Amino acid sequence: MSLRIDEIGFGGYRLMQDTEAFCYGVDAVLLARESVCTHGERVCDLGSGNGIVPLIINALYDPEEIIGVELQENMADLACQSAEMNGVDHKIHFVNCDVLAVRDHLKASSFDIVSCNPPYTEKGCGSVNPASTLQLARHESSATLSDFIAAAAWLLRPGGRFCLIHRPSRLVDILSLCRENGLEPKSLRPVCPHEGEAPNLVLVTAVKGAGKELRMLPPTVVRKPDGSFTDEMLLISGRQ
Amino acid sequence: MSLRIDEIGFGGYRLMQDTEAFCYGVDAVLLARESVCTHGERVCDLGSGNGIVPLIINALYDPEEIIGVELQENMADLACQSAEMNGVDHKIHFVNCDVLAVRDHLKASSFDIVSCNPPYTEKGCGSVNPASTLQLARHESSATLSDFIAAAAWLLRPGGRFCLIHRPSRLVDILSLCRENGLEPKSLRPVCPHEGEAPNLVLVTAVKGAGKELRMLPPTVVRKPDGSFTDEMLLISGRQ
Repeated sequence: MSLRIDEIGFGGYRLMQDTEAFCYGVDAVLLARESVCTHGERVCDLGSGNGIVPLIINALYDPEEIIGVELQENMADLACQSAEMNGVDHKIHFVNCDVLAVRDHLKASSFDIVSCNPPYTEKGCGSVNPASTLQLARHESSATLSDFIAAAAWLLRPGGRFCLIHRPSRLVDILSLCRENGLEPKSLRPVCPHEGEAPNLVLVTAVKGAGKELRMLPPTVVRKPDGSFTDEMLLISGRQ
Repeated sequence: MSLRIDEIGFGGYRLMQDTEAFCYGVDAVLLARESVCTHGERVCDLGSGNGIVPLIINALYDPEEIIGVELQENMADLACQSAEMNGVDHKIHFVNCDVLAVRDHLKASSFDIVSCNPPYTEKGCGSVNPASTLQLARHESSATLSDFIAAAAWLLRPGGRFCLIHRPSRLVDILSLCRENGLEPKSLRPVCPHEGEAPNLVLVTAVKGAGKELRMLPPTVVRKPDGSFTDEMLLISGRQ
């Protein structure tokens, strides 16, 4: 393990990252921004990795409590250490378990928000990275997308919100599985690398037990033609 | 009925429109452009209205034959008259029947492409227009979206393409129903009134029996800030 500590640009927080494993990117920032919650609400972050999403959600929205669920013990340990280092370990906790086993560790219908940045590559697809921590972070190797969505549906109270970031290629799976699990998709935000390009990420928000009607939002554009972040991204990243 | 004849900007064709009924818009042009087909292919246009989509498809792609299915007798008559007026009635035909009854009039698995611009307002929703022709064109009053998609699945050969234009609010229904009917959604193109705005239309292409993997395409933007058509729309509309 090769540790590095980074300023994350939110709430003065710092994050411990294993540079040989998975370092956070724009996805985590976008997901956290979309997971709007208020004081007094409880948040669960499924597939929490090094705990970046709970830290940003806490800085942006200051909810009551955030629980991160992470399968990999070394990642969950790092996430705990980051929470301690930032003095927020009284309200951000991590559960080291498989998403398939959340029912053994957490209560049903006990969260207002579930955020989720699952592995993007479907089980059995894509080239496998030899570093196993990276492999688990990028590939569905235990829980599938279907398992993540079923877990979210189980954890949320009626009316609770599920925020997911994923690849557009899985959009049919995402929208169908959400509906099948009683999480009705209410908004879809494409994320484009540059203006006018096809999106390479989608943010979906679904509400437990809501009526049908999706709102497609304007795309978030990540970079300007010169490669620098757009004003929207700088604002989202807390750097402007 | 108050008739008007318009130049449509494709193939020198003219179109008869009843100005008290439904006059075609950008939707028809976008759908026809998306319904790419080659010489020798057979096309079915479900909910064909005054027959604008078959005329544009013919001008753009010159397929073997196009059959338009239209429930309203007066609209189907107008469509036939337009086809005659343009000298294409040997290859563009219209069937005056409900989408629910296509099995009685057309053969299973006999089309390479099905295009579809169904009524946008769900049965029992929205304000009802007293002019009944307009009402049928805008509201689901006999066939539902589910019926249109089931009819398309039945009409298409394996590997055949289904092209649909609809409101983003129905996207979850569209993608789920396509998959349930064996039409796997392969591309999704948002259509935005202006740059950077949320889309008000979506174009979905699904392929009968294809494997999973959706491609989200860059949005088509309809108008410039000054209200005039964008270069892309002028090109699509055959006016540049």
